[in-house]
Amino acid sequence: MSSGTLTIDLNAIVANWRALDAMTACETAAVVKADGYGLGAAEVAGALAWAGARQFFVALAEEGAALRRALGPGPTISVFSGHMAGDTDLIRAHALVPMLNSVEQMARHLETLPEAAFGVQLDTGMNRLGMEPAEWAAVRDLAPGRTPALILSHLACADAPDHPMNARQLQLFAEITAEAGVPRSLAATGGILLGEPYHFDLTRPGIGVYGGLPFIDAHPVVALDLPVIQIRDVVPGETVGYGNTWSAARPSRIATVAAGYADGLIRAIGRGARVFAGDVPCRVVGRVSMDLITVDVTDLPEPPEALSILGRHQSVDTLAEAAGTIGYEILTSLGRRYSRSYPA
Amino acid sequence: MSSGTLTIDLNAIVANWRALDAMTACETAAVVKADGYGLGAAEVAGALAWAGARQFFVALAEEGAALRRALGPGPTISVFSGHMAGDTDLIRAHALVPMLNSVEQMARHLETLPEAAFGVQLDTGMNRLGMEPAEWAAVRDLAPGRTPALILSHLACADAPDHPMNARQLQLFAEITAEAGVPRSLAATGGILLGEPYHFDLTRPGIGVYGGLPFIDAHPVVALDLPVIQIRDVVPGETVGYGNTWSAARPSRIATVAAGYADGLIRAIGRGARVFAGDVPCRVVGRVSMDLITVDVTDLPEPPEALSILGRHQSVDTLAEAAGTIGYEILTSLGRRYSRSYPA
Repeated sequence: MSSGTLTIDLNAIVANWRALDAMTACETAAVVKADGYGLGAAEVAGALAWAGARQFFVALAEEGAALRRALGPGPTISVFSGHMAGDTDLIRAHALVPMLNSVEQMARHLETLPEAAFGVQLDTGMNRLGMEPAEWAAVRDLAPGRTPALILSHLACADAPDHPMNARQLQLFAEITAEAGVPRSLAATGGILLGEPYHFDLTRPGIGVYGGLPFIDAHPVVALDLPVIQIRDVVPGETVGYGNTWSAARPSRIATVAAGYADGLIRAIGRGARVFAGDVPCRVVGRVSMDLITVDVTDLPEPPEALSILGRHQSVDTLAEAAGTIGYEILTSLGRRYSRSYPA
Repeated sequence: MSSGTLTIDLNAIVANWRALDAMTACETAAVVKADGYGLGAAEVAGALAWAGARQFFVALAEEGAALRRALGPGPTISVFSGHMAGDTDLIRAHALVPMLNSVEQMARHLETLPEAAFGVQLDTGMNRLGMEPAEWAAVRDLAPGRTPALILSHLACADAPDHPMNARQLQLFAEITAEAGVPRSLAATGGILLGEPYHFDLTRPGIGVYGGLPFIDAHPVVALDLPVIQIRDVVPGETVGYGNTWSAARPSRIATVAAGYADGLIRAIGRGARVFAGDVPCRVVGRVSMDLITVDVTDLPEPPEALSILGRHQSVDTLAEAAGTIGYEILTSLGRRYSRSYPA
């Protein structure tokens, strides 16, 4: 086996979803866009459906179609990007629920699929997806008798509980939906943690289910173990890797490890990330290559056969910090060459 | 169609390979590791085999097995990571040629597959993969009558033609292989451009075939067009995206575009990358989300239906520069949600 092993703990995913569900009195959906945050939408959604989740969210109609094939006809599958040009056949064939983001999308949906369910996404200040309050006021009576299955909005700063943006979005959302008389949703993981006023009728956790911040009590979900190809000794002054950017300050032992930026170990981690041999941390040295990293294993008593980059000692958020990014990007970058394992 | 369209020009790939081949008097292989630098190993290698390439390089035995299924029995498929524990069955079943990197790998290969071809990778200073000269001297006579099919090494600084490392590695490689009497290879794309002394018997271009630097005369290979989900007007002071990091300085029009870091638009590009509406550049504003970017389209005469992020106006290297990385990482990060097109 020359590729790494990515172990995905579906029991931890279920436990995280249940813990987030237990924080609210309302229904809890699950967000499985971007192939389940890189961990396998079919596997993740299958486990959560078994655990009781009844609603799933994806980003694109194409993702919804694939998820419908995996889950069967029962669960509700909603699409954040709404009803885009070209989506009609997928929405109909797979009974997807588009979250309509604009007057244009609403007109398209009501015209092409007049009987099909839909939701409405409102923009409450993030200025990314969703109808402006004025648009919503203008179109809500376009289709008398056709009420949305859900009205949702999304918080821009939920990871920062003290940010005044949270209360502003909450107030606006509550105001413009007060009379809607349909289920409402505002909170993803961060919003759940902000407390009861943010919960409404449905929450939509994503990152917390996958073990990431801001859900600090999450069970870790992923472990990534990388095989060592070879080990060499270098003398002080010898350089390692592209561009000779690292040179040995002492007699050093370097392990060459079979994973690189093509596997999601993004180049920026070369600036000092750690991997682990058992409990012992070792530094990545030199540049991250496409298929390889090099690690200083001088202080280990034995040459390692494999090194852990995600797991008990290092979360996706810790690795992300070394790379100047967020755990979400570490997850969605996890590569296709790993051997993926979902232990029961 | 709610996902982006990634168009991969196999004719440009063939033209690039032929141009690199024409720069040398020796044979030219092609490197198709990491799924053909993210563009599809089967498609790329198929086109290059048709164009005359006879040798292909991959990183892992698993990649070699998949490539063998795509190419059939004819071409030589070599594996940079050599013969790792667990690789024996794949190497035998798919007639792969491991580039042995250590005494341990050599012993494993000669013991488990005594009749199977192999190459030897030598380290000439990069300290990443390959036997040290002393190891090679010690083991080269381990198997009398079993000569390597190829001896190769890899340059650490070939992208910097004036770096003294290049001449040092060349000299060492020439010295330790002078008496070997087997085909030798030192140059990837950068090495080809360094000139004839670096060419030996076989070159192994990778990035240049895919249209990237340092091959400045490469034909562009990829175009990436992203659909616009919706467009909104914001007033001065309004913020866009997560964390409210961007705020409008003038009345602005913002397009929300269906691709994000889960599609390989790495978060770091948010610091100022451009996308194009026809010939007109527009700035990415706000943070890159998992599935979305937001773009300032205020200066366009018409609201765009799609925006180009890679193509005629912007190469992988230009986009990489905006993200503080290299074109290689942009290529290998290209996501799985795009609709991929290989026009004839």
